[in-house]
Amino acid sequence: MSFLSGLSAFPITPNDRNGRVDTAAVRSLVARLCTARVDSIGLLGSTGTYMYLTREERCRALEAAVEESANRTPIIAGVGALRTDEAVKLAQDAKSIGASAGLLAAVSYAPLTEEEVFEHFSVVAKESGLPIVIYDNPGTTHFRFTPALVGRLANVPGIIAIKNPAEAREETLHHLAELRAIVPADFLLGYSGDGNSTEALIGGGHTWYSVLGGLFPIVCLKIVRAIQQGNISEARRLDADLAPLWQLFKQFSSLRVVYALADMLHIARVEPPLPILPLPPSARRLVEVTFARLPAEVTR
Amino acid sequence: MSFLSGLSAFPITPNDRNGRVDTAAVRSLVARLCTARVDSIGLLGSTGTYMYLTREERCRALEAAVEESANRTPIIAGVGALRTDEAVKLAQDAKSIGASAGLLAAVSYAPLTEEEVFEHFSVVAKESGLPIVIYDNPGTTHFRFTPALVGRLANVPGIIAIKNPAEAREETLHHLAELRAIVPADFLLGYSGDGNSTEALIGGGHTWYSVLGGLFPIVCLKIVRAIQQGNISEARRLDADLAPLWQLFKQFSSLRVVYALADMLHIARVEPPLPILPLPPSARRLVEVTFARLPAEVTR
Repeated sequence: MSFLSGLSAFPITPNDRNGRVDTAAVRSLVARLCTARVDSIGLLGSTGTYMYLTREERCRALEAAVEESANRTPIIAGVGALRTDEAVKLAQDAKSIGASAGLLAAVSYAPLTEEEVFEHFSVVAKESGLPIVIYDNPGTTHFRFTPALVGRLANVPGIIAIKNPAEAREETLHHLAELRAIVPADFLLGYSGDGNSTEALIGGGHTWYSVLGGLFPIVCLKIVRAIQQGNISEARRLDADLAPLWQLFKQFSSLRVVYALADMLHIARVEPPLPILPLPPSARRLVEVTFARLPAEVTR
Repeated sequence: MSFLSGLSAFPITPNDRNGRVDTAAVRSLVARLCTARVDSIGLLGSTGTYMYLTREERCRALEAAVEESANRTPIIAGVGALRTDEAVKLAQDAKSIGASAGLLAAVSYAPLTEEEVFEHFSVVAKESGLPIVIYDNPGTTHFRFTPALVGRLANVPGIIAIKNPAEAREETLHHLAELRAIVPADFLLGYSGDGNSTEALIGGGHTWYSVLGGLFPIVCLKIVRAIQQGNISEARRLDADLAPLWQLFKQFSSLRVVYALADMLHIARVEPPLPILPLPPSARRLVEVTFARLPAEVTR
């Protein structure tokens, strides 16, 4: 099985008001994930606020994570940027620091065409030599990959996998079938969007790129292992236990909720980068109450 | 009449493959606009690819423009950034270099809440002291300002105007009435989206923030002056002459079309920053043919 299968856990990247990364806090989060034995760590994802960090700070975070993991757990590093030359440099940095793959989103300001995205991804893969995971995240990039474009990119040397946005079950299964028909057999099809990912993996997705997994890897691993062992009812039972959290992710965004959780549980005392605000007190109380009511099994 | 009324012309920012601004080309574009006597120049707007340029290069472009204009024409500088602290620094730069106002968009990666945008704009206005124009550009930022939010921001000291996206006539008139009911009388309501802006100004909008005006100021000024003098039929006649261009703007984006026009007319030999690609040959030919068929009056 590829290192990219199973649970890829996406931690936050603690950093201060000036965007300076707290490398000790990064190490502590990475250690937690290595100890839990997640299949990979997705550093500097959207929840890791990569787009709000300079190239220098992204390097500092990644260096700390790679050193802490000490080859225990492969690290996928977010390498997205608005400019192609910047994404190339970030991917080169990630490779030289020791990331196992790069997660590349179609970050846009001016809306991009399919051809532009194809060229962007091809150039980054070619010029960095870093294995690239396509990051399809229309909620932040406002670009949606068609199956045809994924098919073209999946045949570019060095582009090895995709992180799709998981939708409701029927849609995801349909999308998965469309992609399967068009990509090489060893191209990995993974999902993010925690609330819909269990069903995406039950339906045949290879990887869960998980925000909750970055903070609570144990329950997320249990779900993934249950699916891998064919124990679908156990996976669905655990996923149902987490439903109140998925509801909060939808309502306030997973990013804001995990920042609040990390802070209130003293896992990392941080706030998201401005203009993103911490949850207001009323929402924070709701997160607190909801979390306290979850079965102990899921919050370990 | 405020310096922000009338025609605000938005030139491209010629820069090379490494994002290095060609200050001589910036000066030449600015000189062209000053000579035409546009009411203001919108440097580093979306068409000016501000989001693809570093702080240093934005400063170089603005310094060249301010020096070239030599107080002939007020300059509005794009100061948008993903991070609040960066937008503050860019606005401080713009003020110290001599911009008359800053154009601030709700640039986002993680989708922003109304409260976050309110805080972002308030902090930039307060900490820079630069008069701020709200840049409502959902096509690039994916944030849409509600009239209620505009009303709150219009009462923040230093926030003086808004650049709205012009829609079809009826929608724009409705939106304009909603805004009028909620903002102070001296808060300026302007529009961008060249194809719909003539009707927005006829309907009472104060300012046309124009992409075409950055390249062909004369015909755009004729339209604005006709409206200001009550000659609505003349404004509509000129606007109708430009309809084939507006169609190309819709089809290929105004940014890509003006880059192609600037290049093919030898006004500035440039390409947009990657990943944005120059128009493919077939589209470029269409732009060429369309442009050649426009009445001479509009392409001077």
